[in-house]
Amino acid sequence: MPKFKRTRASKVGLPPGTLVHIGDTRADKAHISVLQYNDDTFTETKDVSLNELAQLETQSGVTWISVQGLTSAAVESIGQQFSVHPLVLEDILNTNQRPKLEDYGDYLCIILKSLEVTAGAADYEAEQVSLILGPNYVISFSENLPGDRDVFAGVYTRVISGKSKIRKLGADYLLYALIDSVVDHYFLVLEHLGEKIEMVEDQIVVQPRPELLHELHALKHDMLFMRKSVWPVRELVNALDRGESAHIQESTLIYLRDVYDHAIQVIETVEIYRDMLSGMMDIYLSSISNKMSEVMKMLTIISTIFIPLTFIAGVYGMNFENLPELKWEYGYPLVLSVMLGISLFMLRYFRQKQWL
Amino acid sequence: MPKFKRTRASKVGLPPGTLVHIGDTRADKAHISVLQYNDDTFTETKDVSLNELAQLETQSGVTWISVQGLTSAAVESIGQQFSVHPLVLEDILNTNQRPKLEDYGDYLCIILKSLEVTAGAADYEAEQVSLILGPNYVISFSENLPGDRDVFAGVYTRVISGKSKIRKLGADYLLYALIDSVVDHYFLVLEHLGEKIEMVEDQIVVQPRPELLHELHALKHDMLFMRKSVWPVRELVNALDRGESAHIQESTLIYLRDVYDHAIQVIETVEIYRDMLSGMMDIYLSSISNKMSEVMKMLTIISTIFIPLTFIAGVYGMNFENLPELKWEYGYPLVLSVMLGISLFMLRYFRQKQWL
Amino acid sequence: MPKFKRTRASKVGLPPGTLVHIGDTRADKAHISVLQYNDDTFTETKDVSLNELAQLETQSGVTWISVQGLTSAAVESIGQQFSVHPLVLEDILNTNQRPKLEDYGDYLCIILKSLEVTAGAADYEAEQVSLILGPNYVISFSENLPGDRDVFAGVYTRVISGKSKIRKLGADYLLYALIDSVVDHYFLVLEHLGEKIEMVEDQIVVQPRPELLHELHALKHDMLFMRKSVWPVRELVNALDRGESAHIQESTLIYLRDVYDHAIQVIETVEIYRDMLSGMMDIYLSSISNKMSEVMKMLTIISTIFIPLTFIAGVYGMNFENLPELKWEYGYPLVLSVMLGISLFMLRYFRQKQWL
Amino acid sequence: MPKFKRTRASKVGLPPGTLVHIGDTRADKAHISVLQYNDDTFTETKDVSLNELAQLETQSGVTWISVQGLTSAAVESIGQQFSVHPLVLEDILNTNQRPKLEDYGDYLCIILKSLEVTAGAADYEAEQVSLILGPNYVISFSENLPGDRDVFAGVYTRVISGKSKIRKLGADYLLYALIDSVVDHYFLVLEHLGEKIEMVEDQIVVQPRPELLHELHALKHDMLFMRKSVWPVRELVNALDRGESAHIQESTLIYLRDVYDHAIQVIETVEIYRDMLSGMMDIYLSSISNKMSEVMKMLTIISTIFIPLTFIAGVYGMNFENLPELKWEYGYPLVLSVMLGISLFMLRYFRQKQWL
Amino acid sequence: MPKFKRTRASKVGLPPGTLVHIGDTRADKAHISVLQYNDDTFTETKDVSLNELAQLETQSGVTWISVQGLTSAAVESIGQQFSVHPLVLEDILNTNQRPKLEDYGDYLCIILKSLEVTAGAADYEAEQVSLILGPNYVISFSENLPGDRDVFAGVYTRVISGKSKIRKLGADYLLYALIDSVVDHYFLVLEHLGEKIEMVEDQIVVQPRPELLHELHALKHDMLFMRKSVWPVRELVNALDRGESAHIQESTLIYLRDVYDHAIQVIETVEIYRDMLSGMMDIYLSSISNKMSEVMKMLTIISTIFIPLTFIAGVYGMNFENLPELKWEYGYPLVLSVMLGISLFMLRYFRQKQWL
Repeated sequence: MPKFKRTRASKVGLPPGTLVHIGDTRADKAHISVLQYNDDTFTETKDVSLNELAQLETQSGVTWISVQGLTSAAVESIGQQFSVHPLVLEDILNTNQRPKLEDYGDYLCIILKSLEVTAGAADYEAEQVSLILGPNYVISFSENLPGDRDVFAGVYTRVISGKSKIRKLGADYLLYALIDSVVDHYFLVLEHLGEKIEMVEDQIVVQPRPELLHELHALKHDMLFMRKSVWPVRELVNALDRGESAHIQESTLIYLRDVYDHAIQVIETVEIYRDMLSGMMDIYLSSISNKMSEVMKMLTIISTIFIPLTFIAGVYGMNFENLPELKWEYGYPLVLSVMLGISLFMLRYFRQKQWL
Repeated sequence: MPKFKRTRASKVGLPPGTLVHIGDTRADKAHISVLQYNDDTFTETKDVSLNELAQLETQSGVTWISVQGLTSAAVESIGQQFSVHPLVLEDILNTNQRPKLEDYGDYLCIILKSLEVTAGAADYEAEQVSLILGPNYVISFSENLPGDRDVFAGVYTRVISGKSKIRKLGADYLLYALIDSVVDHYFLVLEHLGEKIEMVEDQIVVQPRPELLHELHALKHDMLFMRKSVWPVRELVNALDRGESAHIQESTLIYLRDVYDHAIQVIETVEIYRDMLSGMMDIYLSSISNKMSEVMKMLTIISTIFIPLTFIAGVYGMNFENLPELKWEYGYPLVLSVMLGISLFMLRYFRQKQWL
Repeated sequence: MPKFKRTRASKVGLPPGTLVHIGDTRADKAHISVLQYNDDTFTETKDVSLNELAQLETQSGVTWISVQGLTSAAVESIGQQFSVHPLVLEDILNTNQRPKLEDYGDYLCIILKSLEVTAGAADYEAEQVSLILGPNYVISFSENLPGDRDVFAGVYTRVISGKSKIRKLGADYLLYALIDSVVDHYFLVLEHLGEKIEMVEDQIVVQPRPELLHELHALKHDMLFMRKSVWPVRELVNALDRGESAHIQESTLIYLRDVYDHAIQVIETVEIYRDMLSGMMDIYLSSISNKMSEVMKMLTIISTIFIPLTFIAGVYGMNFENLPELKWEYGYPLVLSVMLGISLFMLRYFRQKQWL
Repeated sequence: MPKFKRTRASKVGLPPGTLVHIGDTRADKAHISVLQYNDDTFTETKDVSLNELAQLETQSGVTWISVQGLTSAAVESIGQQFSVHPLVLEDILNTNQRPKLEDYGDYLCIILKSLEVTAGAADYEAEQVSLILGPNYVISFSENLPGDRDVFAGVYTRVISGKSKIRKLGADYLLYALIDSVVDHYFLVLEHLGEKIEMVEDQIVVQPRPELLHELHALKHDMLFMRKSVWPVRELVNALDRGESAHIQESTLIYLRDVYDHAIQVIETVEIYRDMLSGMMDIYLSSISNKMSEVMKMLTIISTIFIPLTFIAGVYGMNFENLPELKWEYGYPLVLSVMLGISLFMLRYFRQKQWL
Repeated sequence: MPKFKRTRASKVGLPPGTLVHIGDTRADKAHISVLQYNDDTFTETKDVSLNELAQLETQSGVTWISVQGLTSAAVESIGQQFSVHPLVLEDILNTNQRPKLEDYGDYLCIILKSLEVTAGAADYEAEQVSLILGPNYVISFSENLPGDRDVFAGVYTRVISGKSKIRKLGADYLLYALIDSVVDHYFLVLEHLGEKIEMVEDQIVVQPRPELLHELHALKHDMLFMRKSVWPVRELVNALDRGESAHIQESTLIYLRDVYDHAIQVIETVEIYRDMLSGMMDIYLSSISNKMSEVMKMLTIISTIFIPLTFIAGVYGMNFENLPELKWEYGYPLVLSVMLGISLFMLRYFRQKQWL
């Protein structure tokens, strides 16, 4: 479960546009690879240095510059080369940014939270992904280094393979494919959390334990985090979809509408999971109180049967010199019978009250 | 109670428009039948093969192509013949789709969730139904095979019988009739669930059992599912009703407004049921705590009466050599009288406190 | 408390416009009376047959056709005569209709839920009332037969008496008067329910009983029903008030604004009652838990005082041959004093803890 | 705490515009005083009779007619003189009216709820205040008689004193000053209730008593009443502020914006108080359950320590002839030591469990 | 935790525009300093008297007049010099003002709540900050005196240092920088409260104590206060951002959009914290009830084991002359064995019920 980071505070007082990487620093060096392709040709250059990048010509085809690992130096250098506004560069480096879309006329800037299922103890991890769409290029920034989880792997494969229609279409379609890939990964995380929710639900019905409450709480937290991540994506794609940007072609809008539908589906599922988690909380609490009720009934039945009997035994344990029953020949069996009678009466009474 | 499926995840990484059937695969073969009719004539062809379909001419009348059972092959072939966008075909095959309306100019695409009451253990089943409206044809896709539950059976009968005005009107009226039929079936499911809710309500008042809590939970789940299914239908019909599509004639709008009213009525009923279920949860919990309270009173009354008496018996059970009361002639009856007095006082006290 | 009816389901599969009376059938025959009036003249014809109605001329004045009791035949016949759309006729007969306003150009159709306080066990009853406003006529349909509760009785009296300004104004003012009468009756029902709520509130404070919880639940149900009935009326009157219909004169708008205010007042009162009922639920639950707490304190005080004393008595009831205290001359009074001391200490402790 | 009145019901069936005073009738006679002023001159006439009023000329300056105490006769007579619509007069007399603004072209009508802190048991009282703004006059109607609480006293003083700028400005500024005075009094009531809330809050933390719950409930009720009174004021001032009325000069709008801000501040404070009251309810309930928990622990500790000891004493109180321990010389001290050991073990166990 | 102040009431009845300082009076004297700068030059004058200020010329560059400490005299004098509307001056002095933006054409007035973390017992303090933006000047009013916490310190340093681009840009950019500084300080307070929330959360899981409940309550209160402070800031920046004011240049809008994003982020975090606090309340309550449940189980286990045993001991403590078992040679060990058997059976039963 990713934490809600609050480290923006470390920038208080600095002028806007100051490039400071905020977040769990993961990278010493930005790994840059450049893919240039059109319908026919395709070239890939890995581990491009900042200098080499400065000499890059963005040809007639589509250029995808993929930056993995965030360093101030790399972001600043790329920013200068493509004349990106300093505030955008600041947002790219500040990994606590809220997902957003900004249209600067010459280019679009999109910031997203990508969620990826992880193998370890944490169920999933969040990564900030930034995309810049220019006339015929897309620059993608991700926090993870090559070799780590890569949310864009599927798109990369489709570009490489050359069979997909992605090679025939423009930079805006590449942008769509990258956003779609991020949204698709939300489904994976949701499916993972959904399985966990069902597991917890089954256990709550069978045997409510306090630990389940903490798991419920953690899952609720996860849902809050997902909602916070996905809601702005919905708005953002909707804004793109209104087709006001010059960089998005008409034919791509239909695909963006598809992403929009998926984003809504993610949000709806999150809301349903939240409702389910609330319902499970109710069931948990009422199971606890049922158990308690059962315990109390046990105590009450045992106590109310034996307390009067013990009292009778106490009476005939008194040492009065003149206690006539003690001298009766059948006093003892008589008292035992009376006790038995009382118990039977009590048991019938409890059965009638449906406590047994 | 249908599950919230999360299997969209299996498509992550694939390019858009990839035709993969997502859902509980129910069909090996799509059963296609074609109805062609106008005011005078009427022809029906059952079990049309894909090849035969390719040679179909859509005449001056209305053509209703009904596809029962979803296979990638059938959907793709029909899609090519009627030049349907690949994304639409993908949505038709992905049965976890959210209900939606898309206007592609040449044709409208509508995706709905149909709910049908079933005889078995599950109260109802959901099926994805897709409708494509062209100039003079409607293509309907449903998951169920012929012979299975068919949400469109009533419309089919009306077309066949020839008495209804459906034969006199265009393809847009057929579309309306199909949507209306889906919405009408929601009422059947609601009525079914409503009866169940009333049954559970009666039982909760009479005798609250933990199993009822789980039934309440399941019914709440059902209401979440229905709301999720019906809300988009309301928006969708509203969008149709605004009359912006060239395929919908003015005279049909009035009927769509009627469907819209029904959709709102379904949603309102769902909301009222949700409110009722929450209220029943409160009653359940307070019944439980009432029972608990009754148990506790029992324990307290028995204990507080007998504990002091047992103490007195204990006192006169002590073996002190010099315990004068033991030697009194009327010691025993005196003690018994004192005990009786204490019990009567206690009982009156409890009556006064309204515990009895 | 009227039930939420779900019998629309019986119409599933029928074509739209099919005239079937849905609801608790109350009438074998529709009782039709016709009032025709203007500033000077006034004629009233009671128990008009459908044939006579067909020959009715709607003169220069205002004609009010009042249909009491719904039958398919009457509705259909009147519908044909005034060329009303079949869907409207269907809605008039389907008494589970949601309140609504439809403007068909030539005429307006308004469907309302009228609520009337009843003398019997049920606090109030709901009746569906439909109004059709044409150029110089109003047709009103109500479910109740003449002699039964009549929500329009006041308006009728005002027309008859001739003193009210209703005789000087047009059909739109008559429509307003009828709607106003329906909304005014909501206040009567609200007042009735409000008295009941106060009664229950007083009882909850004095002596919480489980039956009160069910009354609370029923009152909440009533509020849900009222909200469902009144909300659409508010929207409907607002729509009328926007003055877009040709049938409503400017001078009537000011009166409709008044009805709108009343509708809002009803809704606000319903919301306040809902809030009050929720608060009463809280008070009920906490009263229950207070009682429980009192019971527990009783048990604890008695137990914790006597259990140690009984233990001491038990010690000196042991039969050890060598138990020196038993032979002390003042052993018994000493033990009694110790017991008394322990009780006093306990009582002071409880007083200090504010349990007494 | 003012009650939610429901006496509008007494007017059901009457035609609109019927002048019946609804509310707690407080006045036999309306006390009318007339203030006429402009920058230089100022005249005040107290206890004007209806006849004298009919001869009043509204001069070039501003005329403020203040009516204290509502009678049908006075309202009707004034209404005729200034040609006010009968519906407005009806609203003025019906003191259960919802606050509202109506623009009749020639004049504006504003109805407000004024709340004033009272010295007695009730914390505050509500009064309906109606304002009519004409070209150069304002008519104010209030329920209270002269000598009683007067929400407009401050404005009156400012007009009299002649130092405030109110004398230099028009009738619309007078209207603003009167509305502002009403809104300002809300702050006094809020401050009063706020102090009460804090007092209750302190007591809940120190010692939760059931009476506090009823005070909480009453305060919640108060907040509902205030919200109901203030919400429409906000809308109403906002509507005035849009500057659509010919009677409001541009220069007054800035002052109305100020009143609007104050109304929002009142609403926000009410919402915060509601939130605080909900939180206090939680604290109350959890304090109760804490006390209960403490009581239970007490019972459990005493019981679980002494019940085993009493059992041991019981064992050696048995009268078996052959019970060897009874004959041991150190049997008694040994048993006492065992008992002591058990108690110490129990106490340590409870300490470890943090029950002590 | 700052209190919700309610002292506006002290102004009831005064005419609008009356300059009375409302709030915790902190200043005897306003400390005014003037910064004048453009790209090249820079002059700073500290402790300017009101007379000196009156002779100030606002040159071609930017003039920042910083007023620290609020006195009626200073605010009135500055107000006259810059022809500020009396209502604005009143709002500046009334420190219970709601954050707002007013555009008076010649100048903009912005009122904000600044929150600053404090070292002492209170976690943070609120201060009202007012900003007036004229053609080439900004006047800032803050409650704190020089030497105290200063929310604008960072901006001051940037202006002084001359390295930041703030010196190259206009008065609107200075305004942005000041607002940005206020919003940035919200993050510091949020971070502080976030740490406190986590601390409380950890403690609740480990050991729930009643004091934690009060801390939760206080934190909820803080969140209410923050929401109340930040919500209007969001709206206000959004209004600025729409670019309707002549005083804001196009190039500054992009920076305001950035502040807007930050305000949304603050609000979202506040909402998430509120959600977390509600969840923690649930966990607290269920921990309490878990503990209670554990206590009850303990009591029940001990009681139900020993009560039957004590009864048996009581039976053989009876003094019947004819009680055969007492004379059996192995009566005592037999009874002991039976008792042991019962205990073992009970223990196994409890284990089976999972109470142990």
